[in-house]
Amino acid sequence: MARWEPGARERLVVAAVDLFIEQGYDQTTVAQIAERAGVTKSTFFRHFPDKRELLVAGQETLSRLLSEGIAEAPEGATPLEAVAAGLRRASSEMTEFNRQLGPRLKAAVAASAELQERDALKSVGLGVAMAEALVARGVPDPTALVAAELGMLAFKRGYALWSESDRDDGTDLATYTSRVLDELRAASAQLG
Amino acid sequence: MARWEPGARERLVVAAVDLFIEQGYDQTTVAQIAERAGVTKSTFFRHFPDKRELLVAGQETLSRLLSEGIAEAPEGATPLEAVAAGLRRASSEMTEFNRQLGPRLKAAVAASAELQERDALKSVGLGVAMAEALVARGVPDPTALVAAELGMLAFKRGYALWSESDRDDGTDLATYTSRVLDELRAASAQLG
Repeated sequence: MARWEPGARERLVVAAVDLFIEQGYDQTTVAQIAERAGVTKSTFFRHFPDKRELLVAGQETLSRLLSEGIAEAPEGATPLEAVAAGLRRASSEMTEFNRQLGPRLKAAVAASAELQERDALKSVGLGVAMAEALVARGVPDPTALVAAELGMLAFKRGYALWSESDRDDGTDLATYTSRVLDELRAASAQLG
Repeated sequence: MARWEPGARERLVVAAVDLFIEQGYDQTTVAQIAERAGVTKSTFFRHFPDKRELLVAGQETLSRLLSEGIAEAPEGATPLEAVAAGLRRASSEMTEFNRQLGPRLKAAVAASAELQERDALKSVGLGVAMAEALVARGVPDPTALVAAELGMLAFKRGYALWSESDRDDGTDLATYTSRVLDELRAASAQLG
């Protein structure tokens, strides 16, 4: 298998996350991130308007992919089948770069109260995006909310399992998220 | 009905939230909060270690009440019945002060990215507290997670409805949260 060769954008994200772990989010400057990534500050600013957006950019892409997958699910799909289509769509765009970033991101978030808050808001944002896409399909409001919450839990948990898995295992992200969504669906039937 | 007379702690919270709305969280100092509340800075520090903790204190109380209610639910209660007991316990401790604070808190959060992140992390924290209390009752992990998510959604939505309701309506918070939880339970049966 060819060695994965990251571009400048990916190198900037890895450098930023590593610096956040080592010295904290607040203490890390754009100049330090660019230096660690081996690019100039202007290259940083061609990719991201600031340090904060570097973290937000991935979330916006993810929200868009989840929403598109839900919108494009077959007409007769149930709410959870539409969510599953959203998860498949988003999973299909995640690369080895995203997989390797998982444990680093987790460590950075664990080390910083500010990044914990950012990460929590990110989850809320993904849930809102999925709920809106479901409502646009005609799913009633509370059902859309619950389906979106399950979808968000499935994506987060599936991504964590994938990130922690052995690369040679070959199980892809879509398989993990779909497995977790099935578990959550079964769990919903046990609520009483 | 007697006019509600807030103590120093309640006045500090209201003053802080109003200042966050007017001038932003970052721009608001402890000295300004104390002045607006008509107390000294040392009175502020008798109640809260800093500005941030003023926002977090309520969350910790709420997490504790939800967990206690879940722990004390009857042995044969289903996961959602235990969550309902947690919501009743937390609701029973919320006063007219909490009700009146609702719209102000909402405005402050809407006006500040930092408070949106804080608020999102608060929701995650409440969900985790409920999930842990359910697991301690022997509820299996994914079921506990889903039940806790529904409980958290029910509390947030029920609190919003109660805060926006006419005081003379007389419907209490427990009634709102229980109604929303029933809706979410019904919605879960429509997931497909």
